[in-house]
Amino acid sequence: MNEITVLAPATVSNVVCGFDCLGFALEGPCDRMTLRTREEPGIEIKHFDTYGLTTDPTRNVAGVALSALIEAAQITTGFELEITKSIKPGSGIGSSAASACGAVVAANRLIGERFSKAELVELAMAGEMVASGSRHADNLAPCIYGGFTLVRSTEPLDIIPLSFPELYVTVVHPQIEIKTSDARAILPLEVPLHDAIINWSNLGAFVAGLTNGDLDLLGRSMVDTIVEPARSSLIPHFDQVRSRSIEKGALGGGISGSGPSMFMLSRSEKIARSIKEEISAVFGNSSIEFNIYISKVATEGVRFA
Amino acid sequence: MNEITVLAPATVSNVVCGFDCLGFALEGPCDRMTLRTREEPGIEIKHFDTYGLTTDPTRNVAGVALSALIEAAQITTGFELEITKSIKPGSGIGSSAASACGAVVAANRLIGERFSKAELVELAMAGEMVASGSRHADNLAPCIYGGFTLVRSTEPLDIIPLSFPELYVTVVHPQIEIKTSDARAILPLEVPLHDAIINWSNLGAFVAGLTNGDLDLLGRSMVDTIVEPARSSLIPHFDQVRSRSIEKGALGGGISGSGPSMFMLSRSEKIARSIKEEISAVFGNSSIEFNIYISKVATEGVRFA
Repeated sequence: MNEITVLAPATVSNVVCGFDCLGFALEGPCDRMTLRTREEPGIEIKHFDTYGLTTDPTRNVAGVALSALIEAAQITTGFELEITKSIKPGSGIGSSAASACGAVVAANRLIGERFSKAELVELAMAGEMVASGSRHADNLAPCIYGGFTLVRSTEPLDIIPLSFPELYVTVVHPQIEIKTSDARAILPLEVPLHDAIINWSNLGAFVAGLTNGDLDLLGRSMVDTIVEPARSSLIPHFDQVRSRSIEKGALGGGISGSGPSMFMLSRSEKIARSIKEEISAVFGNSSIEFNIYISKVATEGVRFA
Repeated sequence: MNEITVLAPATVSNVVCGFDCLGFALEGPCDRMTLRTREEPGIEIKHFDTYGLTTDPTRNVAGVALSALIEAAQITTGFELEITKSIKPGSGIGSSAASACGAVVAANRLIGERFSKAELVELAMAGEMVASGSRHADNLAPCIYGGFTLVRSTEPLDIIPLSFPELYVTVVHPQIEIKTSDARAILPLEVPLHDAIINWSNLGAFVAGLTNGDLDLLGRSMVDTIVEPARSSLIPHFDQVRSRSIEKGALGGGISGSGPSMFMLSRSEKIARSIKEEISAVFGNSSIEFNIYISKVATEGVRFA
């Protein structure tokens, strides 16, 4: 086989109570990526979308991740990568993670599955570094493993895949720009111990809720007194989106990644759809353009097309 | 029935990565408490131990908890309570929690099981207030529920019993005094966000490790960069106890509650015993007296004798 096509899904990180460690995968939207080996060494990237991302392999997220894999595998194979992104860069649903993960999962298949999932996350992290400037795996891990993952540590990398019940997600992406660097800069460097305790109590409870399939507990545990109060001010209609979603039956939700996307978790597709209508009505009354998605929480990460 | 005897077990709270929310129950040591109804209203307390605790029911932890239950149940029954404590006050293994929980569980049986476990924790909290001056349930919850519990919130009270694998504990109690108020005063009011993230990532992983029975993960997750660095300086031989315990096969461990007791978790009774010998050797070389216990993590909390 010298050509493979993968679908790399969007992911939601932080998940309110799991800042910088928790994340889950969506079934869609997905980036579509076709990777082809060639005899001539080096990487050539073509983008079939309108986002204007660089195709320089030393600066393109997918290119950097692919280079890391080539180096780790000690191969001289060259690659041609065709990318059709559907996950808009800067949306807060793991656009750069999808690029990085899609590239390494595809390449790993072409070279005979030489790397484990954990190793692929490690390699993809090189790509994420280009996008975010720091070692983060909270979008990469669910993008590769699927489902919910907890990144206990990035140094060394320690990823815990979590069992979870059937869950549906409504994601709204208001078309405004929040730079990850700005979203980071707004965070306090120090936090009250009291708030930190609230956060970890809730994250512990959320993990228990996932593994026990206790949906009400998931809802009660989506509490964040540290990051959300700072960041939600950057996101249009944040309070209204959440309160009206919960009225429609959402278990809970909040900011996806560093925003501006918001996500709401539900126990059924029907509820997720009625939340979609409700959120559409909120944004319909404003001048802000938006995309809105419904998806199951995906059991699979990057998949072969 | 107008008399009942209960055994109220020691408990380990905080468990390194779950400060102020996580705890588990031991099979022993236990306080032995006999509760008897009488026609004359009011509470009479007798202590059959040498700890010199007050028998004034308005200041005795068990008395205050019992009063809270009498008020909540709206009964006029009087009670005689005989207490033989084996859990030394101030040891850091839930001595006051055992007193409070034993009293309310015993009384609840005598009045016909009118309160749920969660309600009993709520009532026992009145007793704990007397001892610690604040609303904490991280020892009370495991003392009543048994096993591992996570207190997601105390206001309102939300207790999550966690499933867990077979585990053994070695607890050493150096006979020095650390006041809970001093152990609290040594804590920072603010903590770096970076450290808080480390803490909640580890707590999330610890909960996953418990529910999945992943013992290695439990070991890796017993990390605390916030409370332990401050408090461990108060505890004699802390570093040596832990490092030598881990050499003998402990999964991990640290300060029990606010100390001075330390606990170490192991996958087998045999390892727990060899850790006991190792810790005894550490303290044997010093002038500090100590008690040392081995126990399984108990599936049951307060039990009927």
